[in-house]
Amino acid sequence: MSSWPEDVGILALEIVFPSQYVDQTELEQFDGVSAGKYTIGLGQQKMGFCSDREDINSLCLTVVQKLLERHNIKPSEIGRLEVGTETIIDKSKSVKTVLMQLFEPYGVTDIEGIDTTNACYGGTAALFNSIAWVESSAWNGRFALAVAGDIAVYAKGAARPTGGVGAIAMLVGPNAPLIFDRGIRATYVRHTYDFYKPDLTSEYPVVDGKLSIQCYLNALDQCYQQYCKNVSKKLNSEVDISSFDAVIFHSPYGKLVQKSLARLVLNDYVRTTKEQRTQKFSELIKLNNIKLEDSYFDRDVEKAFLNYSKEIFDKKTSPSLLIASQVGNMYTPSLYGGLVSLLINKKVSELAGKKIAMFSYG
Amino acid sequence: MSSWPEDVGILALEIVFPSQYVDQTELEQFDGVSAGKYTIGLGQQKMGFCSDREDINSLCLTVVQKLLERHNIKPSEIGRLEVGTETIIDKSKSVKTVLMQLFEPYGVTDIEGIDTTNACYGGTAALFNSIAWVESSAWNGRFALAVAGDIAVYAKGAARPTGGVGAIAMLVGPNAPLIFDRGIRATYVRHTYDFYKPDLTSEYPVVDGKLSIQCYLNALDQCYQQYCKNVSKKLNSEVDISSFDAVIFHSPYGKLVQKSLARLVLNDYVRTTKEQRTQKFSELIKLNNIKLEDSYFDRDVEKAFLNYSKEIFDKKTSPSLLIASQVGNMYTPSLYGGLVSLLINKKVSELAGKKIAMFSYG
Repeated sequence: MSSWPEDVGILALEIVFPSQYVDQTELEQFDGVSAGKYTIGLGQQKMGFCSDREDINSLCLTVVQKLLERHNIKPSEIGRLEVGTETIIDKSKSVKTVLMQLFEPYGVTDIEGIDTTNACYGGTAALFNSIAWVESSAWNGRFALAVAGDIAVYAKGAARPTGGVGAIAMLVGPNAPLIFDRGIRATYVRHTYDFYKPDLTSEYPVVDGKLSIQCYLNALDQCYQQYCKNVSKKLNSEVDISSFDAVIFHSPYGKLVQKSLARLVLNDYVRTTKEQRTQKFSELIKLNNIKLEDSYFDRDVEKAFLNYSKEIFDKKTSPSLLIASQVGNMYTPSLYGGLVSLLINKKVSELAGKKIAMFSYG
Repeated sequence: MSSWPEDVGILALEIVFPSQYVDQTELEQFDGVSAGKYTIGLGQQKMGFCSDREDINSLCLTVVQKLLERHNIKPSEIGRLEVGTETIIDKSKSVKTVLMQLFEPYGVTDIEGIDTTNACYGGTAALFNSIAWVESSAWNGRFALAVAGDIAVYAKGAARPTGGVGAIAMLVGPNAPLIFDRGIRATYVRHTYDFYKPDLTSEYPVVDGKLSIQCYLNALDQCYQQYCKNVSKKLNSEVDISSFDAVIFHSPYGKLVQKSLARLVLNDYVRTTKEQRTQKFSELIKLNNIKLEDSYFDRDVEKAFLNYSKEIFDKKTSPSLLIASQVGNMYTPSLYGGLVSLLINKKVSELAGKKIAMFSYG
């Protein structure tokens, strides 16, 4: 064998989140903000939180054990395990090594992979590395496990209702039901201080809320444009929002996801010639002179495209927000919690052959 | 293309370390320990340290810029960049994003990869992930950069003279002069507390020195045995120390590396039938009943095998310790500093076609 196995992707998904939560309606009252600010304004219903008997290690131990048990996977069938997290409780010893406790009793010690960190992107990095390992010469025929887990808590203030917690484990290998397209994904990375954790003694991040939204939407624009170019070049076909059966996003809060779906439609609009716009986007024709880079905080544009894309959102994105709205932002597992939400919302027969667009941000 | 490119490996290496250092002879005097304790006992000559104008970000920025400049690599030729480090100055924002400052001015933003952490192993993880990416369907024909950097400082006490600092950048791609063997490397991971950094406010690790040595040597035993099995199975050939032209190690301090080379010879000895021992290891025949697991701290065994393997060490390992002995333990870049030391010690004609064994520990 000297080439890639067929249909590499996700064979199984397991998720854990706490059973206790803060009701966002009650948090609105407690914080003395207007009713609906969190539930409608942010689109969040509940926010899960950990007891002091849980930490990032226990969450990841639980989710990996559950995956192995539920799918009857022997520890010896795992050849690689990587953990994406930004919940750092030790600056050197990885969560991955802690997870070895699930494998050592079975004499399984030859498992590659460690921890990987960059804000909420770590789960995606772990997943990409897992897929690459299966496709590489290092693959030994066993499964990879990509784990993502985080505890998201914020200081008192505007960001506090956007916390959450959870962990996801993804079993990666060939002949998967969820297959990743090859050679067309797009990446956009810049050095910005929209979200970081420079105070090592604090669980809280430092967040520049407005900058963070702009960075998120800008990265979305750039990745979508790059993705469209990649598909055009590689597959000689044109992409627009109708190319996908579902479109799911990293979800800091539900409202940003709805705006993001609208943003993709705005991207389609901007790429369309003015002549075609009259036909395709007749009700938006008054926005003819709009530029992407000027529109991050343009309320009129946002509203127009939110309205225009409402049906698309309800159909292609809304089903993916179940866990995000009920548990909150899980950081690294967020996007994959969206995938779980989508999968449990549909019958298998409705999912077969469908194409899901995924946007990871961190 | 649907398979692995040829000869994936390291195309270029760049290293940085500080120009200021502590002379270990002076540190012996300052610490009031016996002369030779650090210089002979540990095998360390100097210990590099950073000024307060350097941090993990500046070290990695310098080493990447130097690599790009020296080898005339355009930023647009890099498609992936991963940083292995356990010098955590932000719990969320990766060093990788900081390095994007070297690429953004050239309009290069589509670079995958983030940071990866597990003690001194992060550089190896970044390298393995880089190789897998080049061999995977995600590869876009560009180079990968695997970066490893750390600042190693210890609290006052026995471990303090084993500090150091440095950063390495490795350019990874096909048609490399340094090629990695495919499908035979070995991994051994366990959940142990030999070295960790639970105090997030401190630069210092918590180290259990004796446990750390035992874990290191045990992992070496296990990896070597697994490697021998892999080669036997895959290539149908038998491995012993004579299979390698050079044997290099992660180097916390030089003496442990010398003991490790001796340990591999001990492994060869133990695997040899008692009949063959008389012939191959005549001077060691009195140790006939030795068991690996009982010998980690057996002075007689250690001494016997250090003596027996002295010539092999001088030839195959000693040249790799130049930077480690002059700069100290660099953590994640340590093993690759050993590789640099070896390469600059030999003429190109002496290196061509040679096989190097590498042991990473963290």
